[in-house]
Amino acid sequence: MASFFQSFVDYCRHPAIPYKKFGEAGDIETSNKRVWAALAAEFLGMLLFALYGGEARDSAAAYGNGLALAVLVYATANVSGGHLNPAVTLGTIISGHMHWQRGLAYMAAQFLGGITGVLFQVALIPDASINMGNEGPGCFTHLGGQFIRKDQLFGWELVMTFVLVSVVYAVAISKPGHGNIGPLAVGYTLFASAFIGGPLTGAALNPARVLGPALIYNCYWNTAFIYIFAEYIGGAIAAILAMLLYGPGPEHGGDHE
Amino acid sequence: MASFFQSFVDYCRHPAIPYKKFGEAGDIETSNKRVWAALAAEFLGMLLFALYGGEARDSAAAYGNGLALAVLVYATANVSGGHLNPAVTLGTIISGHMHWQRGLAYMAAQFLGGITGVLFQVALIPDASINMGNEGPGCFTHLGGQFIRKDQLFGWELVMTFVLVSVVYAVAISKPGHGNIGPLAVGYTLFASAFIGGPLTGAALNPARVLGPALIYNCYWNTAFIYIFAEYIGGAIAAILAMLLYGPGPEHGGDHE
Amino acid sequence: MASFFQSFVDYCRHPAIPYKKFGEAGDIETSNKRVWAALAAEFLGMLLFALYGGEARDSAAAYGNGLALAVLVYATANVSGGHLNPAVTLGTIISGHMHWQRGLAYMAAQFLGGITGVLFQVALIPDASINMGNEGPGCFTHLGGQFIRKDQLFGWELVMTFVLVSVVYAVAISKPGHGNIGPLAVGYTLFASAFIGGPLTGAALNPARVLGPALIYNCYWNTAFIYIFAEYIGGAIAAILAMLLYGPGPEHGGDHE
Amino acid sequence: MASFFQSFVDYCRHPAIPYKKFGEAGDIETSNKRVWAALAAEFLGMLLFALYGGEARDSAAAYGNGLALAVLVYATANVSGGHLNPAVTLGTIISGHMHWQRGLAYMAAQFLGGITGVLFQVALIPDASINMGNEGPGCFTHLGGQFIRKDQLFGWELVMTFVLVSVVYAVAISKPGHGNIGPLAVGYTLFASAFIGGPLTGAALNPARVLGPALIYNCYWNTAFIYIFAEYIGGAIAAILAMLLYGPGPEHGGDHE
Repeated sequence: MASFFQSFVDYCRHPAIPYKKFGEAGDIETSNKRVWAALAAEFLGMLLFALYGGEARDSAAAYGNGLALAVLVYATANVSGGHLNPAVTLGTIISGHMHWQRGLAYMAAQFLGGITGVLFQVALIPDASINMGNEGPGCFTHLGGQFIRKDQLFGWELVMTFVLVSVVYAVAISKPGHGNIGPLAVGYTLFASAFIGGPLTGAALNPARVLGPALIYNCYWNTAFIYIFAEYIGGAIAAILAMLLYGPGPEHGGDHE
Repeated sequence: MASFFQSFVDYCRHPAIPYKKFGEAGDIETSNKRVWAALAAEFLGMLLFALYGGEARDSAAAYGNGLALAVLVYATANVSGGHLNPAVTLGTIISGHMHWQRGLAYMAAQFLGGITGVLFQVALIPDASINMGNEGPGCFTHLGGQFIRKDQLFGWELVMTFVLVSVVYAVAISKPGHGNIGPLAVGYTLFASAFIGGPLTGAALNPARVLGPALIYNCYWNTAFIYIFAEYIGGAIAAILAMLLYGPGPEHGGDHE
Repeated sequence: MASFFQSFVDYCRHPAIPYKKFGEAGDIETSNKRVWAALAAEFLGMLLFALYGGEARDSAAAYGNGLALAVLVYATANVSGGHLNPAVTLGTIISGHMHWQRGLAYMAAQFLGGITGVLFQVALIPDASINMGNEGPGCFTHLGGQFIRKDQLFGWELVMTFVLVSVVYAVAISKPGHGNIGPLAVGYTLFASAFIGGPLTGAALNPARVLGPALIYNCYWNTAFIYIFAEYIGGAIAAILAMLLYGPGPEHGGDHE
Repeated sequence: MASFFQSFVDYCRHPAIPYKKFGEAGDIETSNKRVWAALAAEFLGMLLFALYGGEARDSAAAYGNGLALAVLVYATANVSGGHLNPAVTLGTIISGHMHWQRGLAYMAAQFLGGITGVLFQVALIPDASINMGNEGPGCFTHLGGQFIRKDQLFGWELVMTFVLVSVVYAVAISKPGHGNIGPLAVGYTLFASAFIGGPLTGAALNPARVLGPALIYNCYWNTAFIYIFAEYIGGAIAAILAMLLYGPGPEHGGDHE
């Protein structure tokens, strides 16, 4: 056991994964080890976010989701850039801060993480079970559209995701970043959105948070794709606006800090 | 489509808007492109703040407004200095940190943003409609002055806006700034004010947040201008005090970091 | 008017008050102008803290006091070091970070600010009046000691003030400070204490917050001095421990950053 | 008295304890004075955390524990690294950031601090008494396992402690740390966990927080060790993963910043 552990330590002592900073996720020249670590971080971070976020109920939801996102972005920022959201990753592809191939791999890791996180819920939450329908934890309570019209649902998710991805660009990807406060600002964006848009749409802002519960609990399929499309479009608009303000990323020939 | 997008990327790759820091909004020698970007940021930021802030109800209002302001100041700080409040802009004109012409343009963008944000509410909130009166979301629930006298309303809004603008000077405009924590401190000032003054005045602290709902929902005109005057005066006093403490800005011949 | 304003601007353009950093309040060689600015900042900051903090009721009290303190420390940190609490000032005298004469002047400014803030309450809060007794806003609801014994009251206020002043030393006065997060950490200490000790003692932690309401509203004199002594002793113990850990301040011959 | 105080000041003026940074706790070549200061900080910090955390009830528990942890980590970070949790200390032993002998001393200080903090509760909280059973403040209300199965209890505490220790590595121990925001991120991790896991397990995440109340109030022994084992295992997994990502610490021959 001790010698096995020592072998592991010896393995770790070698090269190690180069350090990154929050938002800095696109340099394609990095080693394979680093790429796999990034994908693992996106998978695991998204798994935990889906597990935490889905368990948060009612009045605790804004805190539970907002703070959990901030904390998990801190945990993963140095490894993968801390996207934890396919809409953020789509934005970085569009603005040239990430190669589209790696971006698709990130998204796959995120969706898989979101689904696996919901399976963890089934194991760890007493009254949760596969295929339980609209009562499943993390099924957005307004997915059925009973409180607002579907175009309003589309509008809120688009606007809120636009704000989220705009903040990611402002505090993490663009040059004069706001340093170590970045992940907190991103978490607070979700936090604020949950207070505002929570009563209307549930404030998803993240395609992987929507697809996981929909697949596992089989809930609200009639609006799930409205969420997902609105979020991707909001992220894309934010990325295009950020390109206009800060210039494109290295994939489009821009400078990269 | 791809080639149109490539043209857009090429357009973005050129000069780009010089980067700014939070509070750094007054250098008049900047390019036209940058000025228009700043005005767009103030318009869009104020639009989103009015949309978010107005939708927040009751107990969520302090969170919804305070965190939303912090987050939107992060998003716009590098582009326009992140004022998002005509009382802040008036302060910077008085203290010489912004030329009065640009300041008036900022204020116009903020008021237009505030009005447009309320129009977004009408589109996105189920029970909101133009001209709906005092029940409109974001109509300050105490605009009618039913709980406190009008001179007390005036006093609270003056004091609270004085604190807000004083914090903006301390963390963003004066020399030994508090760095990347600045926008958070500004948001927390509104947050704290909403807990204290919220039950008394609704804690507006922002002329553009008052005028938007008053115009679109046609609510509480009898006190709207008390709010607006009190806020401008509170901001002006804070700016004069800041000049005394930190010296004037470049428009009055002072140093500028 | 314009020329009067220009004279004021010209006045401001001169020397100006040297900048300081949070916690850096003891250098006695500073100009008179700076000393008066510091006393004014302590007076005004304490006035606003008493006004804000006293108005916060019940469940909002923790937020209202904690966030208001953080924000006001940001606003005053560069001018006076942002003490806003006689127990903090006593600590800095003991540890040699402030000359005792200036420290007494700080305390006088803080107590006067606390009293004046309560007079502002009388003017601005509808149901507040001088001499109103134990119902006065900001009269600590447990000053009567109806829920805990007086020795427990003494113990809680001593422990909580010890923690508050210890955090001030750790994040602001001792060498490897925590930079711009300092005032937030101090505010959060009061925030956390209000959640814990609030139901037991009201979580005052500040002699000037206790004396102001007691004097103006004539409330709970039977326990007011228990609070004040406990808080001073808690602050003193924290200062002595900090001296042991970080060495004494310049008044006792120690280094000063 | 004055001369005794002067002697104390003279004593403090000497060498003083070298400054440290948050997370930087393992260099074994440090002086004995520093080691004892570190152990005292872990003891006192854990005492205060147990006192604060145990008094927080119901809806205040997430705030009371999360913010108190953040604040106490700020207070102790420069002295001991601010572990305040045996599961964090176990992690640093495994990853080679702390010698196992010092780590065991840290853990002893933490457990003693946790127990002493509960004794302070008995003195300071009106309705608390030794041996009072499951109603004791800080006895995790779900220790009896009445709401979730014991394997689910084990799973939640393992996952939540894994997240906590992972954040500690990301923001404090690994190279590109997040600077002065670190302790806040750690506190927010507990904060978020309390919102999520609080209704299920009480969200302990800390063996010393579990053992103290169990010993003094004699409560819920049937699940106490499930908590403690789950937390140690969660911390160990986080440490092994961190080693893989960031390389081992100096005890295993790795670099140390």
